Amino acid sequence: MSRLDSVIRRLEAQRACLGHAAGIIDGRAGLAPVDGVVLELGLGNGRTYDHLRQILPDRAIYVFDRQLAAHPDCRPDADHLFLGEMAETLPQAAMELSARAALVHLDIGSGDVSETKQNISGVEPPLLALLAEGGVVVSDQPLPGLAATDRITALALPPDVPDGRYFLYRRPEI
Amino acid sequence: MSRLDSVIRRLEAQRACLGHAAGIIDGRAGLAPVDGVVLELGLGNGRTYDHLRQILPDRAIYVFDRQLAAHPDCRPDADHLFLGEMAETLPQAAMELSARAALVHLDIGSGDVSETKQNISGVEPPLLALLAEGGVVVSDQPLPGLAATDRITALALPPDVPDGRYFLYRRPEI
Repeated sequence: MSRLDSVIRRLEAQRACLGHAAGIIDGRAGLAPVDGVVLELGLGNGRTYDHLRQILPDRAIYVFDRQLAAHPDCRPDADHLFLGEMAETLPQAAMELSARAALVHLDIGSGDVSETKQNISGVEPPLLALLAEGGVVVSDQPLPGLAATDRITALALPPDVPDGRYFLYRRPEI
Repeated sequence: MSRLDSVIRRLEAQRACLGHAAGIIDGRAGLAPVDGVVLELGLGNGRTYDHLRQILPDRAIYVFDRQLAAHPDCRPDADHLFLGEMAETLPQAAMELSARAALVHLDIGSGDVSETKQNISGVEPPLLALLAEGGVVVSDQPLPGLAATDRITALALPPDVPDGRYFLYRRPEI
């Protein structure tokens, strides 16, 4: 598989997982619809942010990143942007939003393995505080801390997405 | 269509066109096989270079770019690399290689329209000198100067690639 094949598969998996998660929170997957906002952790060039606002047009989307590098057309307004280290901005968001996140998308893998691990362990606790009952997490990285709590269950991936390429979690209703 | 949808379609079109062109020069499309080398104009991160060397493993691939930014695994050796402005390096390559290019891939669209136009008009004349009889050009940009000569014919795109997303040209045998 070439790098061209690989990036196509990665982006298709990303799209499939976002669509699957949107279907769940909108009540199209046999589960009760979930009110609440969307969190985009890692804006990057704004590609998935643009996708999320198209597939979930009625939801507020809050974006978290270290700095703003996205195309001008793919940037949230200042009221929906948390700039800085996520380990700092997410707890702040948890204070403001409380457990109102219906869908969280994480695209936080950097090339560096230990940096990625550190990012993950920094975002897991505030994420747990932000996730609404019935809320879904779509992640490019496994979230072992989240998966280990009894408040979160791992979800099966949509068809055609190979195991280990993306990770889905859900906070069941009590 | 979101930017995520758009990039997936662009990369799929790129892969389909490269595969189609490789099939033509390898004689799998009902046309006589074409001996010769491959030219990659615009290495970028090396994704399509990696793809070309996988689908055409027996062909030498010469790479042209302003600077080397590709992943270390996706770089040609120094003997197959022309660094600098293509309007200068392509004429030099034409002297060294003569009309031995069986497949040329251009990925030279920059965000800037007038810069892209200037890049195109700079590469068309040396490209015409490099293209072997039966050779195929796969381009992310229309090449009006090439298309206007009676030595080049435009080819139909493979199925599923929308008109205007990619451009295929061929130099017929005399």
